[in-house]
Amino acid sequence: MPPSALIDEFRAIVGEGGVLTGDDVTGRYPGYFMQRVEADILVRPETTEQVSQIMALCNAAGQPVVIQGGMSGWVRATQTRQGEVILSLERMNRIESIDPANRTAIVQAGVILERFQDDLEPYGLSFPLDLGGRGSCQLGGNAATNAGGMRVIRYGMMREQVLGMEVVLADGRVLSSMNRMIKNNTGYDLKQLFIGSEGTLGVITRLVLRLRERPVSSNTALVCCDSFDRIAKLLRHMDGALGGLLSAFELVDNSFYRTNTGEGRHPAPLGSDKPYYAMIEALGSDHERDRDLFESVLADAAEKGLFDDAIVARSEKDRDAIWGIREDLEHIVHDFQPFYAFDVSLPVGDMEAYMGEVTRRLKSIWPEGGIAFLGHVGDGNLHIAIGAGTTEDREQVESCVYEPLRPFGGSVSAEHGIGLEKKPWLSITRNPLERGLMRDIKQMFDPKGILNPGKIFAEEAS
Amino acid sequence: MPPSALIDEFRAIVGEGGVLTGDDVTGRYPGYFMQRVEADILVRPETTEQVSQIMALCNAAGQPVVIQGGMSGWVRATQTRQGEVILSLERMNRIESIDPANRTAIVQAGVILERFQDDLEPYGLSFPLDLGGRGSCQLGGNAATNAGGMRVIRYGMMREQVLGMEVVLADGRVLSSMNRMIKNNTGYDLKQLFIGSEGTLGVITRLVLRLRERPVSSNTALVCCDSFDRIAKLLRHMDGALGGLLSAFELVDNSFYRTNTGEGRHPAPLGSDKPYYAMIEALGSDHERDRDLFESVLADAAEKGLFDDAIVARSEKDRDAIWGIREDLEHIVHDFQPFYAFDVSLPVGDMEAYMGEVTRRLKSIWPEGGIAFLGHVGDGNLHIAIGAGTTEDREQVESCVYEPLRPFGGSVSAEHGIGLEKKPWLSITRNPLERGLMRDIKQMFDPKGILNPGKIFAEEAS
Repeated sequence: MPPSALIDEFRAIVGEGGVLTGDDVTGRYPGYFMQRVEADILVRPETTEQVSQIMALCNAAGQPVVIQGGMSGWVRATQTRQGEVILSLERMNRIESIDPANRTAIVQAGVILERFQDDLEPYGLSFPLDLGGRGSCQLGGNAATNAGGMRVIRYGMMREQVLGMEVVLADGRVLSSMNRMIKNNTGYDLKQLFIGSEGTLGVITRLVLRLRERPVSSNTALVCCDSFDRIAKLLRHMDGALGGLLSAFELVDNSFYRTNTGEGRHPAPLGSDKPYYAMIEALGSDHERDRDLFESVLADAAEKGLFDDAIVARSEKDRDAIWGIREDLEHIVHDFQPFYAFDVSLPVGDMEAYMGEVTRRLKSIWPEGGIAFLGHVGDGNLHIAIGAGTTEDREQVESCVYEPLRPFGGSVSAEHGIGLEKKPWLSITRNPLERGLMRDIKQMFDPKGILNPGKIFAEEAS
Repeated sequence: MPPSALIDEFRAIVGEGGVLTGDDVTGRYPGYFMQRVEADILVRPETTEQVSQIMALCNAAGQPVVIQGGMSGWVRATQTRQGEVILSLERMNRIESIDPANRTAIVQAGVILERFQDDLEPYGLSFPLDLGGRGSCQLGGNAATNAGGMRVIRYGMMREQVLGMEVVLADGRVLSSMNRMIKNNTGYDLKQLFIGSEGTLGVITRLVLRLRERPVSSNTALVCCDSFDRIAKLLRHMDGALGGLLSAFELVDNSFYRTNTGEGRHPAPLGSDKPYYAMIEALGSDHERDRDLFESVLADAAEKGLFDDAIVARSEKDRDAIWGIREDLEHIVHDFQPFYAFDVSLPVGDMEAYMGEVTRRLKSIWPEGGIAFLGHVGDGNLHIAIGAGTTEDREQVESCVYEPLRPFGGSVSAEHGIGLEKKPWLSITRNPLERGLMRDIKQMFDPKGILNPGKIFAEEAS
């Protein structure tokens, strides 16, 4: 049945304003690295019950459904094809409750991350997940992709923040697992399957999230260093000597630093002649005490020769200047054309060898190509920006990045997920039995294959 | 086929010494709350390959298998029946590698927790999972039960410590997911299913574990308070004001405190007239600084009236004296007869009402019955010790504890798991759809139902 036959039924469920069609859909923002929205029906439910009815209808009709959140993903996991129906959670955007004593909140999936962070402030609480897309990404999407970001080293990924979940299954059944406790060992932890499943196993509609005490002090430094080995030692030193306060340890390489501190761009707080720069952040509870600790721990590190130069932020302006160098991707996208972006992980001790090998492969093909490494080194997570070749060279560029992961047991996706972008490379990180079991799970939860079809899994014979 | 027909085949796989039979098996320690080992064949493989061969053999023969680790569980998840074969991981006890730069270790499942903790000391690293059974429990069992313990508030449960896993499936296939990175978003996170599955989905043979920097300072206090509400506020105050240092916040009630500080038992550091006592621990990186911080944060709490009296440990001896009161279960088991022990969780804000209701129900039946509450209040986890009725009254005692969880959405098992002990009560915490999906997953991974049959799931029609 053509999806248009379902429109009236969708309208009966969600009302006139809940269904968009035609240009109102295809004209929407398609998301990173996507040309255009191909699907031309979009349904915007307001309640779990409506989601349930929509899914029951689509399942009965064998109608493919692509779930969309804030559209800030990088791997085309929300890309649509003609004939698919988009299910957008944008109208399910209510923070239902905040429980300060239990330090939990119940939210609908469409709540935007930054709004949630802001709303917690009056309670002295925080939601520690933080990433560049905070202004548009939705908490449901954060769960569906197991989002990471800057503070994983201290607080973990989205997986560690989700205590409970409500999911509408492919056939419309509502799985309610709205656990509010940190500890609940009562059989298989079903919610774990949906976290990171990129919309292929169910529609996450509500979440119980764990909250943390809001830090009051923040200390930030930028250091530079001519050896990766010393950067790795500095990470361990800072993590150990700061007790539990270290909240970010971000690396950028010389290429990235130079790009962002070039003329007319960000001021360079440190000279631009070193191969590695690290942004270090500690969040604590006492301004004066934490500043003293931070500086004394840095001074120890200097004495041990763990970096070459450093600057400590003295004001919010300083801090923003340091983070601005790390977070601004505009210049790198401008200079590196065609722009290719990657997100891999591997053990810290293997990173230097890996970066060397990727660079060697790339430069052997495109000697003038640009390459920059940055990332969450404390989590083993490297982002790689490449400007080389033409837009036709994607596969060859990808090969330069992904093939060298094999000897290190690295991952083709640290935090961005697989989507469509990395589907051809999944086998580098997941072996045949793992992929086979994933397909079995998909088959169990979505036997008709209507949820985000074609994502994550290559259409391979099993 | 009777299991004895398999003995020669087991010997061919693991050698003569790898198979125990008869009294050598039935005479072994049966574990808590279990009368006797009923199975009389025990196989002790030394390699994953041997485990794989054993499971392939058992699966082909439809032979039930019960996996045993350190036998320190509390819910009879390792109980055996006649005709079952025990698979013990005790000879797979090698720490295969420790990677200090990446802060990971690769271990076999039979490594004992305490030995692993000790072996990390020279590296300046720690494995933060810690629980009473540390001297006997095995890391594989910790993963299979998603163990918790004292420091979950800071470091999370076993789930948060497991980066990678090797599992032998019911049919002997070896699932190798030995990921060494904190971040790896490449499809469904299969290992999550096995964590907490209590031996019903596969045999965990090897683990990649995340390590942390070893704390150097430790500060401990005991406080008492006449209101639960203020204890809950004190928890938030300490967690916030100590920045990232708070590592334990343990509650014991008056009944437990009095029992353990009675004549000839532990000295009482504080008077025994208060309803609630809390043990508070902070782990940090600097002796002097952390002590000053700890004392000033406690002083603030005193000023805010968050407790009535407090004593801070000045020496290791003081600290052991405080923790001794919390960790010693001997006296409570002696005084509370017949001894019933429970492990539940619920939101912190509901705990006082819950404790009141359990006490009311119990006392209405057994006015002279003993009841004591203790637990990891920061995790919403309460342990309950009861001495009431006779050994025949188990179901009625359980009903007093579990039924009052319903209105609060509480869990019948915070950390101990379900095993056989809590099977009749699983439906309080897990709804029919959750239980149905659990059975679907069991069916997918173990279609013949040979792995730890009858555990977790009630034998109910689906």
